[in-house]
Amino acid sequence: MTKYSIGVDFGTLSGRALLVDIESGIEIESCALDYPHAVMDEMLPDGTRLGADWALQHPKDYLDVLTKTIAGVIRKSGVSAEDIIGVGVDFTACTMLPVQGDGTPLCFADRFINNPHAYVKLWKHHAAQDKANRLNSIAEDMGEEWLKSYGGKISSEWLFPKIWQILSEAPEVYEEADYFMEATDWIVWQMTGVQTRNSCTAGYKAIWNKQKGYPGEVFFEALDPRMRDIVSTKLDCSVTPLGQKAGVVTAEMAALTGLKEGTAVAIANVDAHVCVPAVKITGSGKMLAIMGTSTCHMLMGNDERYVPGICGCVEDGILPGFFGYEAGQSCVGDHFAWFCENCVSADYLEAAQKEGKDIHVYLQEKMSEQRPGESGLLALDWWNGNRSVLVDVDLTGMMLGMTLQTKPEEMYRALVESTAYGTRKIIENFEQHGVPVDEFYAAGGIAEKSPAIMQIYADIIRKPIFISGSAQGPALGSAIFGAVAGGGFDSVYEAAERLGKLKETRYLPIEENARIYDRLYAEYDRLHKYFGEGENDVMKRLKAIKIGEEENI
Amino acid sequence: MTKYSIGVDFGTLSGRALLVDIESGIEIESCALDYPHAVMDEMLPDGTRLGADWALQHPKDYLDVLTKTIAGVIRKSGVSAEDIIGVGVDFTACTMLPVQGDGTPLCFADRFINNPHAYVKLWKHHAAQDKANRLNSIAEDMGEEWLKSYGGKISSEWLFPKIWQILSEAPEVYEEADYFMEATDWIVWQMTGVQTRNSCTAGYKAIWNKQKGYPGEVFFEALDPRMRDIVSTKLDCSVTPLGQKAGVVTAEMAALTGLKEGTAVAIANVDAHVCVPAVKITGSGKMLAIMGTSTCHMLMGNDERYVPGICGCVEDGILPGFFGYEAGQSCVGDHFAWFCENCVSADYLEAAQKEGKDIHVYLQEKMSEQRPGESGLLALDWWNGNRSVLVDVDLTGMMLGMTLQTKPEEMYRALVESTAYGTRKIIENFEQHGVPVDEFYAAGGIAEKSPAIMQIYADIIRKPIFISGSAQGPALGSAIFGAVAGGGFDSVYEAAERLGKLKETRYLPIEENARIYDRLYAEYDRLHKYFGEGENDVMKRLKAIKIGEEENI
Repeated sequence: MTKYSIGVDFGTLSGRALLVDIESGIEIESCALDYPHAVMDEMLPDGTRLGADWALQHPKDYLDVLTKTIAGVIRKSGVSAEDIIGVGVDFTACTMLPVQGDGTPLCFADRFINNPHAYVKLWKHHAAQDKANRLNSIAEDMGEEWLKSYGGKISSEWLFPKIWQILSEAPEVYEEADYFMEATDWIVWQMTGVQTRNSCTAGYKAIWNKQKGYPGEVFFEALDPRMRDIVSTKLDCSVTPLGQKAGVVTAEMAALTGLKEGTAVAIANVDAHVCVPAVKITGSGKMLAIMGTSTCHMLMGNDERYVPGICGCVEDGILPGFFGYEAGQSCVGDHFAWFCENCVSADYLEAAQKEGKDIHVYLQEKMSEQRPGESGLLALDWWNGNRSVLVDVDLTGMMLGMTLQTKPEEMYRALVESTAYGTRKIIENFEQHGVPVDEFYAAGGIAEKSPAIMQIYADIIRKPIFISGSAQGPALGSAIFGAVAGGGFDSVYEAAERLGKLKETRYLPIEENARIYDRLYAEYDRLHKYFGEGENDVMKRLKAIKIGEEENI
Repeated sequence: MTKYSIGVDFGTLSGRALLVDIESGIEIESCALDYPHAVMDEMLPDGTRLGADWALQHPKDYLDVLTKTIAGVIRKSGVSAEDIIGVGVDFTACTMLPVQGDGTPLCFADRFINNPHAYVKLWKHHAAQDKANRLNSIAEDMGEEWLKSYGGKISSEWLFPKIWQILSEAPEVYEEADYFMEATDWIVWQMTGVQTRNSCTAGYKAIWNKQKGYPGEVFFEALDPRMRDIVSTKLDCSVTPLGQKAGVVTAEMAALTGLKEGTAVAIANVDAHVCVPAVKITGSGKMLAIMGTSTCHMLMGNDERYVPGICGCVEDGILPGFFGYEAGQSCVGDHFAWFCENCVSADYLEAAQKEGKDIHVYLQEKMSEQRPGESGLLALDWWNGNRSVLVDVDLTGMMLGMTLQTKPEEMYRALVESTAYGTRKIIENFEQHGVPVDEFYAAGGIAEKSPAIMQIYADIIRKPIFISGSAQGPALGSAIFGAVAGGGFDSVYEAAERLGKLKETRYLPIEENARIYDRLYAEYDRLHKYFGEGENDVMKRLKAIKIGEEENI
């Protein structure tokens, strides 16, 4: 009898469920739904205004999406709930919320309905930047060891800056919250009735280490005396490695979803990390880049190495038994979108429309006619700062080599190349610090849709590139974990081998191009150092002038 | 009885005559005409193909324009030829042609009609670059003193590279040419029947020095033995300072133009240089910038100083009695035109059209809403290389500071600012080498039409800017010289005081802006040095890769 697994992927604006045949690996049915409240960045449903850089979500939306999309794939596929052996979920992160002892979100209570701090803080809620800055400075002063596992800096997107903002601005919410939960763990709690915490978000977003646990009480006390015991109270729960079973579907949730009561639910996961087994990666040395508006790089190693400028190194953080390394480029597709929105001349747009092509497709076709180096252009991919390997949000973009003959497709290509140089820099940084990168895998919109970009990447990084075979990598990854939790496989490695998917297409480096790109990369590298590592901090000084800072005499 | 003077200005695509009342200075009438053959850069009239980088003109066009535009202003104004006391002319330069002993252009002879080298080589004929390179290298090897008066390099646009190309590619033309003439001197010859050579083109374009004459025979022999005696043969004619009378209108030319036979004709001049008296500049310390697609800077000093990176220093080169300094920026309006053509998004173009505005006007209005430094952007204005002060055609453009919020008007403004920083660099370079710049005057299309740009210039160079009062600066300047030649004034200084014109508008530096720009200029200056003076020759290496050069091991 054929068995099935369901993966549910919670994104920024919508969620989707995917039903997978765990023998053939065929993706039987999927069902997506937008969050009714989308991202709340201006006001709460009742009209309460939000400050600058806020980004909230409504936890009820997650429950709606969970129940409706699961019910949807079951109904549409005609598969019997009996044959669905497990469910896995993944989420954006750090996406967190304050809850009561039974898991009820604080914002469900009438008295908190107009309190922004009672809602879900989405990953891109950036209003805790000053808390992150102070946290980093205190950690540095106190010589906190864990700092170096996170490239030397904690992001304002992560758990403790967000919690600290709540304490600071809404102490009544902090006080009433029995727990602060990652949304991904919270949804598993809602499905199973059991509170668990996964090693991925704990490690990457909450400064947890398998050997050493969380930072100590002295550190939290230094942030605010009221936070001293936060780990033993509001985060109180052991951390479970990925690949385990969290619990089983409750009767109530079975009624809402159409799943059978008692169906296995996997330990929660994160959207980027869960893609790794979905592309058949089951060991060290294989980097997965999830390429969209930004790029997230996943890599496993056999031991813990100090690699500067990465987002984090977490034991069991990607797959159990390995050290999971995460790095990132904060602006990839966003560069190209910025360019098309601001810099593409009207005649190009018209020509693209005439040919019935998206402007990106049009430019990518035109840029493919050029050979590497032909434009004479070189760019630094820092339009949104640099995440890895410089961890510096104050860096900005640069392009040089323009002449009066420079054409839009040449600038577009220079931007593409600059993001590939950034990727090569990340790869070399891992290699230089003892974490090998032997193979390169790509998933996400760009990997899927832009062969011209992927060939440039292959030529620049000098590695063959494998492409994710599923357009729904995260949901497939979650289904893999669901299948393991349900006993369909002995391990996530076995499940990944069977259910993970790669396209037949491979992008192989073309030696002639790669040789030219080696020379161009050497130039990128030198400017990377010059502008990025303190030789000439002109970008920072320009930013200081921009925000009206007086000159330092 | 009111007296008049006529100035005739020969531009790149057309010529114009201007009739001026020499008592009131009122511009009575003007008449312009396009050259029938325009610029010949692909083929001769008979279909003979031209090579890359060629740019020729037909000398008959000059005669047509001369006679028709002078006749035009006389007829339209109703002024009597009796009352027109003098004529002055100016031209683009070095614009040169081979002629017979009587002044007849070689291309007028049937046997040369299909020989490109028999025609006029326009200033922007760039096909003699290899000759210029060899000439410079030989001059350097021989330690030729004059090289330093020209910023260390002779341009391929100048006289001797062009002559050398003729000798090399068409020795029969070289052989048959009794003289090589600057077009401006040639047109005076046609009007007066007398061959003269002016100190401006001789000095700036033909390596002539008032004290030392031309380079010696040994130097020319080193170029090619056949050129050894070129100065005493094909350039044989004394050089006359500007401000003198060349001769009088012949009977034949009187019949063609409507001028009276015997009317005074001034020594010929160059379009940029002749503008100086047209803005009332009559002494040292006042820089005139003629701002169009590129910018030409004119400045007089009381003595000869070695100023690196300028185009030339010539005694009597601008006004008699002074050392005339010329510097240049090879790309100014061209930057903005490139930007509008390649980088302005369709919605901006649409909005401009909706408001009935030229896209430049639209962007300039939008950029005026920003305060200095607000964009965080900084550019190097090298899209067409750098003329002064680096004299390096292999440099290319650079812009940095871009973020995902960067808007087109911000980039446009950064380009405007970068050209103003380039001007400040030229000013400071003069000052550092002992040639004071106390006041700044601007003429040309940008000065005339773009108040927002001129204010930025005033803020960046920290000097008040005076604007040319005539939209036809060169023609007015030539009329001034014509009036002097005709005896209407004792000197060009007196004539300039009476007939030169400034707008009432002044652009005064705003201290608050200037202070911010001092900081931004310091950043420009540092990058100017880094990319322009050998610290990081990335632009040159990119160019080498662009043209397919192999790597130097």
